[in-house]
Amino acid sequence: MTADAAPVRIGVLGTGRIGRMHADLLSRRVTGATLAAVYDASAERAGETAERLGVAAAGSAAELFSSPDVDAIAICTSTDTHVDAIVAAAATGKAIFCEKPVSLDLADVDRALAAVSRAGVLLQVGFNRRFDPAHQSVREAVASGAIGDVHLVRISSRDPAPPPLEYARTSGGLFLDMTIHDFDMARYVTGSDVVEVFARGAVRITPGLEELGDIDTAVVTLLHESGALTVIDNSRQAVYGYDQRVEAFGSLGIAASENPLAHTGLVRTVDGTRTATLPYFFLERYIPSYLAQWDAFVTAVNHDLPAAVSGADGRAPLAIGLAARRSLDEARVVRVAEIG
Amino acid sequence: MTADAAPVRIGVLGTGRIGRMHADLLSRRVTGATLAAVYDASAERAGETAERLGVAAAGSAAELFSSPDVDAIAICTSTDTHVDAIVAAAATGKAIFCEKPVSLDLADVDRALAAVSRAGVLLQVGFNRRFDPAHQSVREAVASGAIGDVHLVRISSRDPAPPPLEYARTSGGLFLDMTIHDFDMARYVTGSDVVEVFARGAVRITPGLEELGDIDTAVVTLLHESGALTVIDNSRQAVYGYDQRVEAFGSLGIAASENPLAHTGLVRTVDGTRTATLPYFFLERYIPSYLAQWDAFVTAVNHDLPAAVSGADGRAPLAIGLAARRSLDEARVVRVAEIG
Amino acid sequence: MTADAAPVRIGVLGTGRIGRMHADLLSRRVTGATLAAVYDASAERAGETAERLGVAAAGSAAELFSSPDVDAIAICTSTDTHVDAIVAAAATGKAIFCEKPVSLDLADVDRALAAVSRAGVLLQVGFNRRFDPAHQSVREAVASGAIGDVHLVRISSRDPAPPPLEYARTSGGLFLDMTIHDFDMARYVTGSDVVEVFARGAVRITPGLEELGDIDTAVVTLLHESGALTVIDNSRQAVYGYDQRVEAFGSLGIAASENPLAHTGLVRTVDGTRTATLPYFFLERYIPSYLAQWDAFVTAVNHDLPAAVSGADGRAPLAIGLAARRSLDEARVVRVAEIG
Amino acid sequence: MTADAAPVRIGVLGTGRIGRMHADLLSRRVTGATLAAVYDASAERAGETAERLGVAAAGSAAELFSSPDVDAIAICTSTDTHVDAIVAAAATGKAIFCEKPVSLDLADVDRALAAVSRAGVLLQVGFNRRFDPAHQSVREAVASGAIGDVHLVRISSRDPAPPPLEYARTSGGLFLDMTIHDFDMARYVTGSDVVEVFARGAVRITPGLEELGDIDTAVVTLLHESGALTVIDNSRQAVYGYDQRVEAFGSLGIAASENPLAHTGLVRTVDGTRTATLPYFFLERYIPSYLAQWDAFVTAVNHDLPAAVSGADGRAPLAIGLAARRSLDEARVVRVAEIG
Repeated sequence: MTADAAPVRIGVLGTGRIGRMHADLLSRRVTGATLAAVYDASAERAGETAERLGVAAAGSAAELFSSPDVDAIAICTSTDTHVDAIVAAAATGKAIFCEKPVSLDLADVDRALAAVSRAGVLLQVGFNRRFDPAHQSVREAVASGAIGDVHLVRISSRDPAPPPLEYARTSGGLFLDMTIHDFDMARYVTGSDVVEVFARGAVRITPGLEELGDIDTAVVTLLHESGALTVIDNSRQAVYGYDQRVEAFGSLGIAASENPLAHTGLVRTVDGTRTATLPYFFLERYIPSYLAQWDAFVTAVNHDLPAAVSGADGRAPLAIGLAARRSLDEARVVRVAEIG
Repeated sequence: MTADAAPVRIGVLGTGRIGRMHADLLSRRVTGATLAAVYDASAERAGETAERLGVAAAGSAAELFSSPDVDAIAICTSTDTHVDAIVAAAATGKAIFCEKPVSLDLADVDRALAAVSRAGVLLQVGFNRRFDPAHQSVREAVASGAIGDVHLVRISSRDPAPPPLEYARTSGGLFLDMTIHDFDMARYVTGSDVVEVFARGAVRITPGLEELGDIDTAVVTLLHESGALTVIDNSRQAVYGYDQRVEAFGSLGIAASENPLAHTGLVRTVDGTRTATLPYFFLERYIPSYLAQWDAFVTAVNHDLPAAVSGADGRAPLAIGLAARRSLDEARVVRVAEIG
Repeated sequence: MTADAAPVRIGVLGTGRIGRMHADLLSRRVTGATLAAVYDASAERAGETAERLGVAAAGSAAELFSSPDVDAIAICTSTDTHVDAIVAAAATGKAIFCEKPVSLDLADVDRALAAVSRAGVLLQVGFNRRFDPAHQSVREAVASGAIGDVHLVRISSRDPAPPPLEYARTSGGLFLDMTIHDFDMARYVTGSDVVEVFARGAVRITPGLEELGDIDTAVVTLLHESGALTVIDNSRQAVYGYDQRVEAFGSLGIAASENPLAHTGLVRTVDGTRTATLPYFFLERYIPSYLAQWDAFVTAVNHDLPAAVSGADGRAPLAIGLAARRSLDEARVVRVAEIG
Repeated sequence: MTADAAPVRIGVLGTGRIGRMHADLLSRRVTGATLAAVYDASAERAGETAERLGVAAAGSAAELFSSPDVDAIAICTSTDTHVDAIVAAAATGKAIFCEKPVSLDLADVDRALAAVSRAGVLLQVGFNRRFDPAHQSVREAVASGAIGDVHLVRISSRDPAPPPLEYARTSGGLFLDMTIHDFDMARYVTGSDVVEVFARGAVRITPGLEELGDIDTAVVTLLHESGALTVIDNSRQAVYGYDQRVEAFGSLGIAASENPLAHTGLVRTVDGTRTATLPYFFLERYIPSYLAQWDAFVTAVNHDLPAAVSGADGRAPLAIGLAARRSLDEARVVRVAEIG
């Protein structure tokens, strides 16, 4: 933001867990942005957030989209509503932030991207981990050439606790709900698209998931256009806390992001040394990345820049995820080009 | 705070660097507290903060103290004004938070404590490091008996860059301005008062400091009532960032707080491994401790509890600091009891 | 060894790089063992080691095998000669240590194991990494139940510099020469056999390797009988040093072995913190594991115990490696049972 | 050693704990040196080591000193015999290695140094920690200018378990027996002599030590000629293992040596992360430094170089230790020049 730019007034669509978090951040902690209004299909839920943060609750999504007091829309509703919301928001000419995944369906994503393209508006997709300073340092080590050509990437990405069994019915499954962040990370760190996927998975944590066609434990191997190989491992339940590590191995060295600890204290006794636990989950670990994500959005709006995470960046991990799903089902290597 | 307690409305006296920080935190990020108003001897400076945070700027300190919309006063002015402000605030029956040091003069501190005692109000002194989770983990390892009887404590406390030479004229010098945090830490971690001090210092960073009777580099040894020995080292200029480490050595082990790093990324090449820098200074490192300090204040107000850091806790490090100064001047061991 | 057991007198067959290392260790640093004699097809090479260590050089392999002054044979020759040496040594009734891999051919391994079984002699296979205290701590955390059921294992195993191109003609390729250690580690850490393999590889370091049918960069996914998934990544050239890490993820936590550093010194400046390099290669990192490997051998000989690393433990990683090779060639999942 | 230099044949005087260690190392693991013979006042004790290592036990110290098969003498007897042994060995023209401390008496040290000087022989004093690669890296960071001018040094030096009470009668006390290593380290790391000492101590571990005039817990502050300040903390009982850390703080950064761990394994659960214990004591931690110390000795002998740790380096820490003792007794700052 230039010193005299007016704040970007952002309307938040959807005030569930992630929408409330964005509303909170926008209300208080993002320089150059303000929370303009909120909307949720549940008027009660919207009202609570609106009152707590001292903003208006729009009477309808359409009202939010068309409000002259709203410069940009943050789409934080359930995944199945994202595309229609993008299309509607684009029609008003407003800048758009959309949570991941854009959709579970590629044709729908293409519909959204076409609307955005026609309208010439900004669309930034919510892959917040790109804005984590440790993961960024890995990307920078690659981009600067400090570790040479990338040969291998390894990503461990493990949640602290599984969602309810029912969640699997609408989430799109592990690959589209959770691993999609890692597919994005693989593209981000290497700067290279993915051409081939092999996935192996298991149900180790939540019995009953098999019947819903889902898994909770996985290993996925990706081949990039550049020839780099990425391997991802996932679990829905790392009891020791949110485990998020990325490592790029190249011809001149490695760059890696380790897990932070809750604090830097240690106790050393005759039994060895004990250090603190990991941050529990994304709210404990990634707030700085969510803030930096909004900083990037504000900068793009104010300076008419391309999105830091574009619609194409939103589409690509979905295609990889669908390829991973097919690889798992058919126990074979699947080319991303097969998916479309 | 109980769920239905009204927020504690806090008026901030002094809107210099530290006062602005407190005003910012109170305005936005402390559950159970609100920023009620600000005052500064410079109306312009007060006005800027008031406008930025959307609160009133009081027309005088007296107005702030007597306002019915203010439940508590945060004293963030220059050190020489603290005691009068405490006395005035106490007279209104309001709860008081006062930045460290309370004063550079023990008799003045006693005057403040007497006023607080007479008024029966809460006084919490701003030794924020007690609320840092890593330093707290050291205290907890001592208090729980996990490391047995404490024999030795070592504290490294080094600022990233020296203040201007002129600052030495009013700061009280290294021991009262900077080491005072470490004297408090030594008492906090051991849970034991200090009876004897030996200090050695030097001017290594800021030429000209000698003529002002100050130093910028020091080693101080403390003997506690419990028999524990604490050793503190200080520098005004750690070019690698704000270095704050505490270690307690006991009969069953050690507990220590290490420095956090700016992020957890690393790069490993043929030259070895490089990790991130330290947070630059207290704003980068200690915001969570400042927030926890306010949480403790709010809890004490709402539940009528003793202060987490009492007036006596504010007085003791001043006496140690004065003893350290005398030790340095006279090149001998000084008992704190000599100081009064 | 019981206090009064006579030392186990060991004859070393083959005095190339690895044979010389074993001879050195046995000559000086293994309690309960002595170096009895050496033999090498090159009399000159054998003579150098014999003279340096003050032992006899046998005139032939047969002489070494039949010597009454030799209790056990350490087979350190090239891989293609291992099986015949095992058969000949077994015929003399002597205990046998054989370097990995036992052979590149499963039928040959079976021939060796049959000879060992008929003779009733001890055969210990040289998977030294099982004796590294850090990797052992991972195994112990699994075996003790400390991390619960194992869901995922990740192994990074990277050499500092590639062998000469010509080496690929006889080494059996990356999977049988290098990854074979990791296949063993996967079985060791999980305590579970491998049933299925998927391998992906590339030539990124040594041009010309393709024409020899080999690779220098790989990712391999293993499915264990227990349901655990292991993922291995390999490179022939980690310029920052010998990189050997194992991590087991289970229902109650993770256990991992990190890389040691050459020393514990660090330098912290305005540019961040720099620590030491990794040990360069196996001689710098794994000597303690080679010593512990010999301790286990001596204990097994003296107490008539089963081998710590048995003939079956030597066979299994070969079958996995052959399956990995087929998986790479055919770009599909291969069941180990297909290999035989 | 040049490639064709004959090995330096070393006779070990004294086969107690430290003498046996040196004999073992010289017998097997020092390139360019051999163990020539041993002598101990206890013929039985000498005989055991001689037999175990396959060398002769001399019939008397004089026999060892005058033997034509001995090039150098390693003095490993009790401290009170060092000086006479140095004088006798010097008279034979042999190179001398002497364990620390050279003596508990400065006049005696001077007598030894005079004899060495007259004879023109090499005398290297056994401050092995100078050869530890981590401590060396601290020295190198200072010597190279990487951390600028040194302002502060902190040394933690803690043994795992106290010696028997009786040991205090002859050891010279904590400062001459144990802290003497740290006084040497302070000189080594800074490259600057010590001019002033302040010591504070306590008995926290071994009741009864007071009556023998000794302590087991100490903090010592040193002022160097360069203006640097060193602070040392000592304990006779760090139950978590041998704790040896050095840190130099300078105008451009810090260099530090951390404690190694027994291995690099870790276990991370819901309770946090647990890592391995420290090496237990000097035999577990410092063998590489003892080997490097012998390498330096061999190099000095073969190339007629000055000792890496000279007689003057042996004398200086004794003077500092005596000053520390007086500082403790008189509760004041003592200048080293007062001691003589």
